[in-house]
Amino acid sequence: MNRLRPPARNSLALSELFNISSASQANSAHTVTESEKLKGVSDQIDTRTEWLSPDLLAAVRANVPLVYVDVIPVRVDSHGRVTEVGLLLKVASDGSISRMLVSGRILYGERVRDALVRHLEKDLGPLALPHIPPNPSPFTIAEYFPDPEISGFVDPRHHAVSLAYVVPVSGDCTPTQEALNLAWFTPAEAASSKIAADMTGGQDRLLRLGLAHVGKLP
Amino acid sequence: MNRLRPPARNSLALSELFNISSASQANSAHTVTESEKLKGVSDQIDTRTEWLSPDLLAAVRANVPLVYVDVIPVRVDSHGRVTEVGLLLKVASDGSISRMLVSGRILYGERVRDALVRHLEKDLGPLALPHIPPNPSPFTIAEYFPDPEISGFVDPRHHAVSLAYVVPVSGDCTPTQEALNLAWFTPAEAASSKIAADMTGGQDRLLRLGLAHVGKLP
Amino acid sequence: MNRLRPPARNSLALSELFNISSASQANSAHTVTESEKLKGVSDQIDTRTEWLSPDLLAAVRANVPLVYVDVIPVRVDSHGRVTEVGLLLKVASDGSISRMLVSGRILYGERVRDALVRHLEKDLGPLALPHIPPNPSPFTIAEYFPDPEISGFVDPRHHAVSLAYVVPVSGDCTPTQEALNLAWFTPAEAASSKIAADMTGGQDRLLRLGLAHVGKLP
Amino acid sequence: MNRLRPPARNSLALSELFNISSASQANSAHTVTESEKLKGVSDQIDTRTEWLSPDLLAAVRANVPLVYVDVIPVRVDSHGRVTEVGLLLKVASDGSISRMLVSGRILYGERVRDALVRHLEKDLGPLALPHIPPNPSPFTIAEYFPDPEISGFVDPRHHAVSLAYVVPVSGDCTPTQEALNLAWFTPAEAASSKIAADMTGGQDRLLRLGLAHVGKLP
Repeated sequence: MNRLRPPARNSLALSELFNISSASQANSAHTVTESEKLKGVSDQIDTRTEWLSPDLLAAVRANVPLVYVDVIPVRVDSHGRVTEVGLLLKVASDGSISRMLVSGRILYGERVRDALVRHLEKDLGPLALPHIPPNPSPFTIAEYFPDPEISGFVDPRHHAVSLAYVVPVSGDCTPTQEALNLAWFTPAEAASSKIAADMTGGQDRLLRLGLAHVGKLP
Repeated sequence: MNRLRPPARNSLALSELFNISSASQANSAHTVTESEKLKGVSDQIDTRTEWLSPDLLAAVRANVPLVYVDVIPVRVDSHGRVTEVGLLLKVASDGSISRMLVSGRILYGERVRDALVRHLEKDLGPLALPHIPPNPSPFTIAEYFPDPEISGFVDPRHHAVSLAYVVPVSGDCTPTQEALNLAWFTPAEAASSKIAADMTGGQDRLLRLGLAHVGKLP
Repeated sequence: MNRLRPPARNSLALSELFNISSASQANSAHTVTESEKLKGVSDQIDTRTEWLSPDLLAAVRANVPLVYVDVIPVRVDSHGRVTEVGLLLKVASDGSISRMLVSGRILYGERVRDALVRHLEKDLGPLALPHIPPNPSPFTIAEYFPDPEISGFVDPRHHAVSLAYVVPVSGDCTPTQEALNLAWFTPAEAASSKIAADMTGGQDRLLRLGLAHVGKLP
Repeated sequence: MNRLRPPARNSLALSELFNISSASQANSAHTVTESEKLKGVSDQIDTRTEWLSPDLLAAVRANVPLVYVDVIPVRVDSHGRVTEVGLLLKVASDGSISRMLVSGRILYGERVRDALVRHLEKDLGPLALPHIPPNPSPFTIAEYFPDPEISGFVDPRHHAVSLAYVVPVSGDCTPTQEALNLAWFTPAEAASSKIAADMTGGQDRLLRLGLAHVGKLP
């Protein structure tokens, strides 16, 4: 698997990348297992299940909203104009392989800023050099529910209230852990219906809200 | 207890009001009970403990951050200028009687907007006519921790990530339930050290951040 | 000319309305005159030319950026959700008949809030009851230039730096002065390519940026 | 004159620096001339008077508001927390020697981002490495008037509508041109009444609004 890094921009369609991913899902008998294992890995990292027993995690998910952060990583020029948007290729919470934002839970005792840095490092590697904005307020709030009718933002696992940020990164980004790939797109590409078709859970809409926030919605 | 409503502005010092409240706490043997009962009422309403068993609530509080909203209710003139700031007189989570913002938990399955309306109705009554802003992003994020050293925002019960809003109200405000009083202050009064001394948990600072957001910090 | 008011929503295509407007422009010999007269009226109101001689206005326009406000008037429900977006039908600065936002200059000595109220009254009438947000910062800055290549926001007359706001109106809106019509659209309609085709100078993009700001971009 | 650069933080009182400045204003007969010369230099740079004749500049100033930017330059840590605030020591528009923000006019044909970079370079030097935020909306709007009663923001020369930003700088800052000094302060120092006493035109209040925006108001 080639992991593209800027300035090389990945214009491969997700369908092309499916060849690779479907190869790793060759035997249908194993597909579910593979997918679930990946999902398990994701949960383990995302919620540090060593700190939260499966029973407690299930009880929490059924009773209170979780706090998340969503991050749109971007490249900016010397005047702060967004030139590129980074999207991960990951196994989403619904099991599909999707283009995704950097996303994850805020842990007990953790500051929002620390969660932003931790999830950016988790997904983009330790050399991404994120520039977390000094202003702590998110550009929008994405409310994820299992029911897709409520807000358009969907997470089949739980109700999550997610603080959404646009974060410039100036360093070397190498997708780590469960991300299959990281690709960079122009703002126009990122706002296109082609990319939207590769995203899930309403994250394509969240991406467009973020592009509008930085004045880059076509 | 006189519950003041605008346009009459309450300039009583909290110390004067203490006469009333200390009267209701006359017997020290009962004081704790009274205070705890009030606090229990607060929790019951705030977290709908009928939906969350005490054990589960304790487990949740010890393991994940809760999602809260904080609201600064304001009066505005016809041009949107903040003329008055409403502060509740309540038993705070630390047991003290304090000037407080409208504040409370977002419930499982509840939209942020619905939580804002519910908590405003809970504290200001059903006729307050809040004007929830169309923009869903809070003016800041207040991160409450039991440890006062972490962020300056303190809640002895749990870690809460609170979305903070300034919400104009144009109707008739009558404090309900556990609020002892609602008083209106000019922005300059609200930003004063006198009012700050009557607030707890860092809410005086949150109030000043909100006043700055609307351009009304002296 | 029927001037539609909410809750009646106007779903007429601009092309249908053109019948009316072309009727009023029946004789091509007079069309230019009519249009220019309207445009003259617009300038007169917009820049109070009684205060600014034509020579000075021309000198200003050629040498310094002007300060403008753009307003997206919206209807909101009791929870602050945008339900409808109001668009004017006006003769635009390029002479075309277009769907337009409420827009105009900030005058010498005028506060931004006063300019917002003045332009809303000018275009929506004195009973519109706008709720100017307490927070003075615009959701975005639209930079208009005669050259369409610079920012995508175009004003053939001058360089203008425009502060853009979303303003809920709760009263009775009746288009006044040079507006031919005021129509209300759902957020989805307002973000559609059909409406975009009826707008000019990049205001369709500004409208979508505003819809994103209130979480209502599809 | 020693021009301090971070990480060395300048805690000198302005009064101590006055020794230097009053030295350069030794002969009262020349003081006005010196001051006016400095002010003339300031105008020349600020408004590029080679492009705007004195007559036209006077006419513009008397008839339309000018568009300005105000910038609070800050140092941030790896998590985006503001650690230091940079303040210039300059001859203000009222002739006093004051702590000042980076501030200046947007020129005809100039993008807001370009004006931000230009004024930051003008005041902090070409190696300051400013990180202009991708979001174009200012944290507040400061409306300057000759009359101090109108908004609290004062410019004796004209009415200016100023877009205010907090901009992290990560490079080497060396005050250039008319700035006498650049000093860095902790957020708490920057919000103190001691620093406020050294500022003019309401910029101390604008500074506190900016500190609140980044959550750093005490």
